[in-house]
Amino acid sequence: MALIVQKYGGTSVADIEKIRNVAKRVLDYYKKGHKVVVVLSAMAGQTDNLIRLAQEMTPQPDPRELDVLLATGEQVSVALFALAVKSMGYNACSLLGFQVAIHTDHLYGKAHIHEVDTERILKELEKNKIVAIAGFQGMDEKGNITTLGRGGSDTTAVALAAALNAEVCEIFTDVNGVYTTDPNVCPKARKLEVISYDEMLEMASMGAKVLQIRAVEFAKKFGVPIQVRSTFTSERGTMVVAETKDMEKVVVSGVAYNKNEARITIKKVPDKPGIAAKLLEPMFKAEIVVDMIVQNTSEDGITDLTFTVPKADFYESMKRVSDVAKEIGAEKVLGDENIAKVSIIGVGMRNHAGIAQKMFQALANENINIMMISTSEIKISCVIEEKYTELAVRVLHDAFGLENDPQEDR
Amino acid sequence: MALIVQKYGGTSVADIEKIRNVAKRVLDYYKKGHKVVVVLSAMAGQTDNLIRLAQEMTPQPDPRELDVLLATGEQVSVALFALAVKSMGYNACSLLGFQVAIHTDHLYGKAHIHEVDTERILKELEKNKIVAIAGFQGMDEKGNITTLGRGGSDTTAVALAAALNAEVCEIFTDVNGVYTTDPNVCPKARKLEVISYDEMLEMASMGAKVLQIRAVEFAKKFGVPIQVRSTFTSERGTMVVAETKDMEKVVVSGVAYNKNEARITIKKVPDKPGIAAKLLEPMFKAEIVVDMIVQNTSEDGITDLTFTVPKADFYESMKRVSDVAKEIGAEKVLGDENIAKVSIIGVGMRNHAGIAQKMFQALANENINIMMISTSEIKISCVIEEKYTELAVRVLHDAFGLENDPQEDR
Repeated sequence: MALIVQKYGGTSVADIEKIRNVAKRVLDYYKKGHKVVVVLSAMAGQTDNLIRLAQEMTPQPDPRELDVLLATGEQVSVALFALAVKSMGYNACSLLGFQVAIHTDHLYGKAHIHEVDTERILKELEKNKIVAIAGFQGMDEKGNITTLGRGGSDTTAVALAAALNAEVCEIFTDVNGVYTTDPNVCPKARKLEVISYDEMLEMASMGAKVLQIRAVEFAKKFGVPIQVRSTFTSERGTMVVAETKDMEKVVVSGVAYNKNEARITIKKVPDKPGIAAKLLEPMFKAEIVVDMIVQNTSEDGITDLTFTVPKADFYESMKRVSDVAKEIGAEKVLGDENIAKVSIIGVGMRNHAGIAQKMFQALANENINIMMISTSEIKISCVIEEKYTELAVRVLHDAFGLENDPQEDR
Repeated sequence: MALIVQKYGGTSVADIEKIRNVAKRVLDYYKKGHKVVVVLSAMAGQTDNLIRLAQEMTPQPDPRELDVLLATGEQVSVALFALAVKSMGYNACSLLGFQVAIHTDHLYGKAHIHEVDTERILKELEKNKIVAIAGFQGMDEKGNITTLGRGGSDTTAVALAAALNAEVCEIFTDVNGVYTTDPNVCPKARKLEVISYDEMLEMASMGAKVLQIRAVEFAKKFGVPIQVRSTFTSERGTMVVAETKDMEKVVVSGVAYNKNEARITIKKVPDKPGIAAKLLEPMFKAEIVVDMIVQNTSEDGITDLTFTVPKADFYESMKRVSDVAKEIGAEKVLGDENIAKVSIIGVGMRNHAGIAQKMFQALANENINIMMISTSEIKISCVIEEKYTELAVRVLHDAFGLENDPQEDR
């Protein structure tokens, strides 16, 4: 007798037959007496088709109108889903962003949800309807259509679960949970039973695509338990929840990697107050996301500064940095696109010593040179040569025994 | 410096290139200083694709959800159009039914417009934007999406023109105006300079597809002048306007035909009060549209009743009528699907004698037998054998000299 929010991704609603299967799946819950709110993405490929159409019209489509165009993708999905449920003899009702309403700011293409009204949803649920809500879309204060950015349907689902005080937010996708690392890289990768919001955030920021970062942040903020699971099996997935004492017993939960960054080093920078700010300012102005930043202790008032940027922004960044470097009298600027970042993640790190050392040793054993190191409370990241990425992931997965279920160890 | 409403049909926005051309066309008006509100249909074929998708899901799609699905067609068009205008360096803004808002009743699939808000449109026009409005769609009082039925974008355009007090409502389509008759049937068909609302209504009800009937009714009610013209030429089209004294000089404006009806005759009906009502009641209950109804003067208290129904409803109608016919003691029920209706239309008929006689004689000269006759103030219709349709149209077009421009006669 619970209220459940379920989100089905694009591959889960890729065609009429798949939408019918999702309807059957949802009805299984409904028949058990649960109230079900379903959030749907656009049919697989549809959003890309619409973007292509817009770009055929103009290489830089106006963001407001692009959102109007893209929002049709999810609108088609929810209408077809409601038709499927009704054709099976049950009652359903689709609701679009403006009908719910899902209130957002006016940042087209990457809007943030401010508030979710629940009145209309609750009214439809009381009439014993399955409520299908278009993911990814909202409405700003002027009634303009906004979209939440790639993977935004996850955020829609979590925001709805928070607003409706749902028992759980189930994210149905084409993988059956969150793994200790990418199974394509490391065959020993193991599906996690449970993971904390913070660990999930670190995994997601490293490119694990099962959940959108914003959705996890939202879930953390409002304490919404998420289950990530497969549309195509009935297997239990991975619970993403608030951290518990128990979780700290597991030192490392997962290994993540990211090949989408490039490294820029400014050599022999005069180490004066404000120099780092001055060097990075042109990046911020160009809205280039600077990730890792490392500066060593200076020697004789001279230091080196290294940071990473998305590969797509590498050339632009090199140009901008070189200009400032000249200006401030730095020796030279070095760039390297052939890097990767590997990270170990785990809330247990906080209370365990020697984790970093174990990581560095494992990489050293394979003669993998570490170019940069950066640590946070629950993550240690190393920048290495790109060609060693897969090897490094497997070595670290082994080193921390991630193939073994920690539950069984106790 | 006028405010103009322009509507472009599906073939006019069939692909990216065509939408770009529409944008250029609209900008021509805009650059002359006019304020332009553009109403767009879905890209040609798109609505059919969406209907097919819905029917793939279920043979009888739920009307509410079907409307949610279909409304995406026009949403795509307006977004792409606005992108086109913006890419040309001008400002545009798309608005959907709910954003305008276009208020309708809740008859999904065939909703009627109750009211059109103008505030948002005027605000955007004041900002020198070209406002692109999704045709065919509205919103009921609960915020549900509704659609207006096939060709509903015409009605959207006329309703907007009325609400905005526009100088003219231009309907851009793939023909360059309203013709004296179907040019495919009669090569001598001539484009009309001007036609009255009432004549246009009669033409439309006879299957002339250039304008939706509801749109003409709306235009007549609010006195909105319509110009029907081609998207693909700059030629002047046909003005559809309120009747003027001048128009009455033209006796017959056009010849129309309709092959989509079937005839049902009930023979030897006891002629008692209420008998016609009783015979037709089962039609009304099944929402079958009965068109022509003819009953002759009775002889010895016995009469024949004949009426026409859409061909699609013929078998259902025969079944229903046969049941009642038996009940009331009629002799028999005859049905004929191979009929057609040809009509001559003209406001001038009101003041001219001998028109009917001229029509009947023209048909008789070709040995075309008339099965039913029905007249209105501005129309005379004859039901004939279907195989004579085209011949009849050409004969009547000749008989009333429609190939000659009446303006030149004076």
